[in-house]
Amino acid sequence: MRQALAAARAAADSGEVPVGAVVMQAGRVIATAANAPRALADPTAHAEILAIRAAAQALGRDRLEDCDLWVTLEPCAMCAGAIAHARIARLYYGASDPKGGAVEHGPRFFTQPTCHHRPDIYPGIAEAESAALLRDFFADRRGI
Amino acid sequence: MRQALAAARAAADSGEVPVGAVVMQAGRVIATAANAPRALADPTAHAEILAIRAAAQALGRDRLEDCDLWVTLEPCAMCAGAIAHARIARLYYGASDPKGGAVEHGPRFFTQPTCHHRPDIYPGIAEAESAALLRDFFADRRGI
Repeated sequence: MRQALAAARAAADSGEVPVGAVVMQAGRVIATAANAPRALADPTAHAEILAIRAAAQALGRDRLEDCDLWVTLEPCAMCAGAIAHARIARLYYGASDPKGGAVEHGPRFFTQPTCHHRPDIYPGIAEAESAALLRDFFADRRGI
Repeated sequence: MRQALAAARAAADSGEVPVGAVVMQAGRVIATAANAPRALADPTAHAEILAIRAAAQALGRDRLEDCDLWVTLEPCAMCAGAIAHARIARLYYGASDPKGGAVEHGPRFFTQPTCHHRPDIYPGIAEAESAALLRDFFADRRGI
């Protein structure tokens, strides 16, 4: 999660909402990504999507059933769906997101009967640090 | 929807689940894409995601509030989330998807109180043709 937090900090430095993600396979980092929808002009460029895509490219396949995803914020519906499509084994995340989260909030994607893959889920990893990054970012933007 | 159906047929010819999508702006096609997770080794490479990403690249921005999305199948949670992030104005789709759909099935993403953008939604456009493409594809794969 340290590398995911570093990616989140890099996102903030670029003016993007600070979220970072890492895909690991057998204890090895396969991909690291920072949230970058503005820089990339890509509404799908959340940290999770970029990390999953990079890991899939690195491994040359569209299923990552032997991989885990670490992300600093509760994934949204788009990212939760991507996690299921990629067959990610374990999901570790930091801060909860009552507004946009889709794991423990909103659509609660992985609890839906139609959900075809549910990773093991470990919330609250480095939660305080992940949340502080977001809080500071939005406070700065509001000029507080 | 004709172009989306042509893209879906192209997907089937490549051995991918036949789904196609088109992004339009003021009556002009901005991007067309076929479902390609296997060919691209990318679990996020649904037709909608590829079309939205291509349209955002073409327009140089991550919001497509003046664009409409046409897709041959009811979007899944990942794609519904991307449609909301992209601020797509109108969503036209073909066949319903009781298994993986997230518009009228499963998480019913756009009806969630936490959903921050809901396009105008027009289901059932060229539904029979869209559904037939999928049915024939899976029948072929089962060797029926």
